[in-house]
Amino acid sequence: MIERLTILGVGLLGGSAGLAVKSKIKHVQVTGCGHSDGAAALAAGAVDRWETDLQAAVEGADLVLIATPVQVIGPSLTRIADWVQPGMVVTDVGSAKAAIVAAGEAAIRSPAAFVGSHPMAGGSKAGVAAARADLFEGAACVVTPTAASDPAAVGRVREFWAALGGRVIEQDPVEHDRLVALASHLPHALAAALVAVQEPGSIDIRGKGFADTSRVAGGDPNLWREIFAMNRANVLAAVERLEGELATFKQHLAAGDDAAVFAWLDEQAKRRNALG
Amino acid sequence: MIERLTILGVGLLGGSAGLAVKSKIKHVQVTGCGHSDGAAALAAGAVDRWETDLQAAVEGADLVLIATPVQVIGPSLTRIADWVQPGMVVTDVGSAKAAIVAAGEAAIRSPAAFVGSHPMAGGSKAGVAAARADLFEGAACVVTPTAASDPAAVGRVREFWAALGGRVIEQDPVEHDRLVALASHLPHALAAALVAVQEPGSIDIRGKGFADTSRVAGGDPNLWREIFAMNRANVLAAVERLEGELATFKQHLAAGDDAAVFAWLDEQAKRRNALG
Repeated sequence: MIERLTILGVGLLGGSAGLAVKSKIKHVQVTGCGHSDGAAALAAGAVDRWETDLQAAVEGADLVLIATPVQVIGPSLTRIADWVQPGMVVTDVGSAKAAIVAAGEAAIRSPAAFVGSHPMAGGSKAGVAAARADLFEGAACVVTPTAASDPAAVGRVREFWAALGGRVIEQDPVEHDRLVALASHLPHALAAALVAVQEPGSIDIRGKGFADTSRVAGGDPNLWREIFAMNRANVLAAVERLEGELATFKQHLAAGDDAAVFAWLDEQAKRRNALG
Repeated sequence: MIERLTILGVGLLGGSAGLAVKSKIKHVQVTGCGHSDGAAALAAGAVDRWETDLQAAVEGADLVLIATPVQVIGPSLTRIADWVQPGMVVTDVGSAKAAIVAAGEAAIRSPAAFVGSHPMAGGSKAGVAAARADLFEGAACVVTPTAASDPAAVGRVREFWAALGGRVIEQDPVEHDRLVALASHLPHALAAALVAVQEPGSIDIRGKGFADTSRVAGGDPNLWREIFAMNRANVLAAVERLEGELATFKQHLAAGDDAAVFAWLDEQAKRRNALG
């Protein structure tokens, strides 16, 4: 198990990782670094130590967790590359993995190692003030090794997320990006489009169904611009696939083929209810 | 205030209305009637009396609430027309109002009166066993009078939903159907389409965002087939409007115009967060 964790970017995810480590793994020293306010991270108890100097923050860590905004993860990997030490493992929390894993494997090389991660956790509020020690509890935590990955480094990253309460899943980074576009990026685009078509009169009569279906549209638009930009082709393909389903639904409905509408609804209801 | 309420169709909505009336309005005798099991409605405390004979159930009521499946509301209005009495008000809970209001106003005539209603409440479980006295608490309860409506009857229906804790809103029935397609029927179609495009690998890594956005897809496919059939043209128009928003989003994303993607996301996030 790790002894010295450095978190770059101590916001909702980085701060929650710090809180979780400190409550679930004993004797780990957690160092924070980043553009945000170190005092807030220290006050929240998410880190033991705050370094404004990146080199000082990274040196001596056995695990470096990059939890900055997704577009900054690649540049951060390049910046820390000169300071990694033998045996050090670097991972991240970015929502799209193919580009980050390529950058990480290019920058962080043996005898150090990079292994990508994507914990499927978040919340409507950003920042360390919203961080929670149980944020990863039960959450799918995807680890994305490649053929080039060091098995011991993969094991350390898996062990880390499992210790934080995550449900560890391994996926190829390219396949992960295709799948996460369906499971996470598409719901965000849909929720935003659903809000976009509303009028004062429809908003006035909204019920719980609208609240649920549109909830994620309230998320940070800066974060989501970056995620969509990082996973552009897969998001476009996911939206097109959804448009195909809507076309089928419309075709049945317009034709008055209510048996076909029922069969489609029934299949989705069964699939959704099987998830609990 | 009413003294004798008859509920035709004592399922989730009818049963909840019965429970709410009995807990919030004193001295109302509630009679139930319908295809479902009267013993369950009586045992749940949703009704005081069960009639298997429709005429006996309706006679003497000052308010008749039709809470059957939406496709049966029109036929029920025709069936009870011969037994309505002076001063009796009939309303319903159907999700689409234009056709029902036309049928109701044709069947139930002065000195009785029909006024349509649509309480925006429901749940994932159907039947009187899932009924709750607080189901309408804080829910938008739409009342859909027309130029032909008797003001006293409208007042009685408004007063009824307000007494059950609803937030009463008046809308023209035709306009209601257009707006409810946006606020309620579209979210259901979207949630089902979102489930339809998933794969085992994406389901495996789903997070809270997917759970929220897809939740309503688990609803009763029979109920939703009927709702879509009753509001066919408006649902088609709502899906097409949403497709227009998705096309705009895709266009910005495909062009690499991330500033435009941000502006669109930012506007929807502000609108969504303003709703609380």
